[in-house]
Amino acid sequence: MSQTAASAAIAAILADPRFQAAVATMEQEHDRTVGDIIRLTEIPSPPFKEERRAAAYLEMLREHGLEEVEQDAVGNVMGRRRGTGNGTTVVVAAHLDTVFPEGTDVRVRREGTKLFAPGVGDDTRSLAVNLAFLRAMDAAGIRTRADILFLGDVGEEGLGDLRGVRHFFTEGRHRDRVGAFFTVDSPEVDRIVTGGIGSKRYRIAFRGPGGHSFAAFGLVNPAYAMARASLTLAELTAPSEPQTTHCVSVLGGGTSVNAIPNEVWMEVDLRSQSATELARLEREFLAGVEAAVAAENAARSTREGPVVAEVTPIGDRPAGHTAPGAEIVQLAVAAVAAHGYEPRQEYSSTDANIPMSLGIPAVKIGSGGRGGRAHSLEEWIDVEPGESLRGMSASLAAILAVAGMEPG
Amino acid sequence: MSQTAASAAIAAILADPRFQAAVATMEQEHDRTVGDIIRLTEIPSPPFKEERRAAAYLEMLREHGLEEVEQDAVGNVMGRRRGTGNGTTVVVAAHLDTVFPEGTDVRVRREGTKLFAPGVGDDTRSLAVNLAFLRAMDAAGIRTRADILFLGDVGEEGLGDLRGVRHFFTEGRHRDRVGAFFTVDSPEVDRIVTGGIGSKRYRIAFRGPGGHSFAAFGLVNPAYAMARASLTLAELTAPSEPQTTHCVSVLGGGTSVNAIPNEVWMEVDLRSQSATELARLEREFLAGVEAAVAAENAARSTREGPVVAEVTPIGDRPAGHTAPGAEIVQLAVAAVAAHGYEPRQEYSSTDANIPMSLGIPAVKIGSGGRGGRAHSLEEWIDVEPGESLRGMSASLAAILAVAGMEPG
Repeated sequence: MSQTAASAAIAAILADPRFQAAVATMEQEHDRTVGDIIRLTEIPSPPFKEERRAAAYLEMLREHGLEEVEQDAVGNVMGRRRGTGNGTTVVVAAHLDTVFPEGTDVRVRREGTKLFAPGVGDDTRSLAVNLAFLRAMDAAGIRTRADILFLGDVGEEGLGDLRGVRHFFTEGRHRDRVGAFFTVDSPEVDRIVTGGIGSKRYRIAFRGPGGHSFAAFGLVNPAYAMARASLTLAELTAPSEPQTTHCVSVLGGGTSVNAIPNEVWMEVDLRSQSATELARLEREFLAGVEAAVAAENAARSTREGPVVAEVTPIGDRPAGHTAPGAEIVQLAVAAVAAHGYEPRQEYSSTDANIPMSLGIPAVKIGSGGRGGRAHSLEEWIDVEPGESLRGMSASLAAILAVAGMEPG
Repeated sequence: MSQTAASAAIAAILADPRFQAAVATMEQEHDRTVGDIIRLTEIPSPPFKEERRAAAYLEMLREHGLEEVEQDAVGNVMGRRRGTGNGTTVVVAAHLDTVFPEGTDVRVRREGTKLFAPGVGDDTRSLAVNLAFLRAMDAAGIRTRADILFLGDVGEEGLGDLRGVRHFFTEGRHRDRVGAFFTVDSPEVDRIVTGGIGSKRYRIAFRGPGGHSFAAFGLVNPAYAMARASLTLAELTAPSEPQTTHCVSVLGGGTSVNAIPNEVWMEVDLRSQSATELARLEREFLAGVEAAVAAENAARSTREGPVVAEVTPIGDRPAGHTAPGAEIVQLAVAAVAAHGYEPRQEYSSTDANIPMSLGIPAVKIGSGGRGGRAHSLEEWIDVEPGESLRGMSASLAAILAVAGMEPG
């Protein structure tokens, strides 16, 4: 699809009286949407503990009249808005989980049009906005050729490792019918994510015989094997195109200042825009770990036992991208531009990584309005109606264009 | 003094009826000594919290009729048994502190002649045995030319860093009159410590600007500076004569797998039998830390700030030794050998490090009997009278020989 064709398709939608009725509904119901944002934000949803929010959202999907409302085996909740076509499905997702641990104060503080609370923008607002899309389509009598599957998924953040969407696409019963995938994630609509940064994360434990720092001097020390592995990683090639990075991020170990440690460990983060580069980086890093262990076992005595490394994967997000010329990208770009924004295409790590890695057209779009300090206790969004509705209108237009809004 | 002369001096003491009366007193009072061991062991004396045991021991020194019984500014307790000479002082010390933290169950469990409790042998038994020496000398009417200063000192273990004896020799009012120093530490009398392993311990924190592992890739990473410093230490020369060692022992840092750490840290332990070697090792290690920081700041971007290292000393025990030909060594060896043991001269890190480093004749001797599992919750001693009294007799003979037992 050319950008011109995409712009024309978006213009037709924006001119359609039913689309305008949908936007008017979102405007009339803005307070309800804000109420839903607050209600959902105040239900804690820590990593791996999304149950309460999932149950509430499941009930909301049901109240919104979706079909086949259900929760799958990993905790994702979803429901279908049936289309007029052959059952091809467009997924519109938002993630249920936040980065905040149990016990975090998630009460929303309102100052003017700003809402402050952990998780309020990433990604709770999107959960409420997707419901607003649904009500607006229903109120305006909008039909689409494709089915739209509304999805509230678990495990997008951190060690959740995209497990909700991964399950959806590997085990879920809808996996073979998905023609396109939107994840509505965070407010800004001008930042369209069309590329998924792949990442591999490892925890490497280096273990040895330990011993007294003085009496057992000369024995292998796992801290030195780890230091060598760490420096090997530091020196690995990381091209800026495709963007590729690596990092030793967290480490620990040892028990007492007068003892050779029995065990030390580090966590590393490897990322790339390119699956090939990521695989190369991973291969070289793991070879570096082996070489570092061998070097330590050669440098000092193994008479009480050698140093060994235990490599535990703790994260695996596939790299992928949706081509700039793909219809979903062109339509999202056109919808955003038609609302007066300057669309940017970015790489990031989102739920869209999974469908992108499978070759399914996927983008991340925004929930509208502004926000900031995501992942911090000072996270905020602005629900000022003008800016919020402009962004929501852009994202809804993109979804309807991809799902094939039926002529009136 | 030749070993022959030392053996003759010890033989004369052992043959003296007053010495034999002293040993007989220790035998008659063995149950009281065991009672004192139990009573003192059951008064917790964690690192830096020796107050309760110190107060009890101060009272016991007073009840034993010592002069000038007092507690000094750091918490050491002591009292003088006046000699017949010019006021030269022989110190007989035992340490009040244990390695066990507050809240450790220090009740003594008795099985036959074995006593089980944290700290029972290291070094609580010695506190009670020193009181037994005192009562035995008094009962037998033994006088010495030198004054004997009985000392219960704080801070021998771990991060206590010998602070009690260090204060005694740097600030204490007796510091200029000490002619010889015994520390009675742990049961075994055959292990005579004549050399003090010096140690320097550091905690090095490496700090940098931190940042997102992907978005801020290319910034300096303090983990790499630490790795380089660690490997520099691993490769530093450590002669086996004088025995010299080094170790990266405990480390930690970083907050999240997807962040370049703001701070990482490591603890290192440097030791040597030689003060010169220890100083050389310390100098080279600290230069290595500086070089590692500079290398990291050269290898990656410092646009958000450089990596800096903060070096904090956490331990400093001076190296030192008492020459094999020194009178105190020869007499201790002869006394132990005369009791049928095979004396060994060892290097270790004890309260004797401090006087040794000042050139004051000093040794560690034993409190008698057997024991094991020191520094563990299963620590035990055997108070079976035969073996216990044989060891106590050996140590008392060494003390009396050095302090100059007056002829009857």
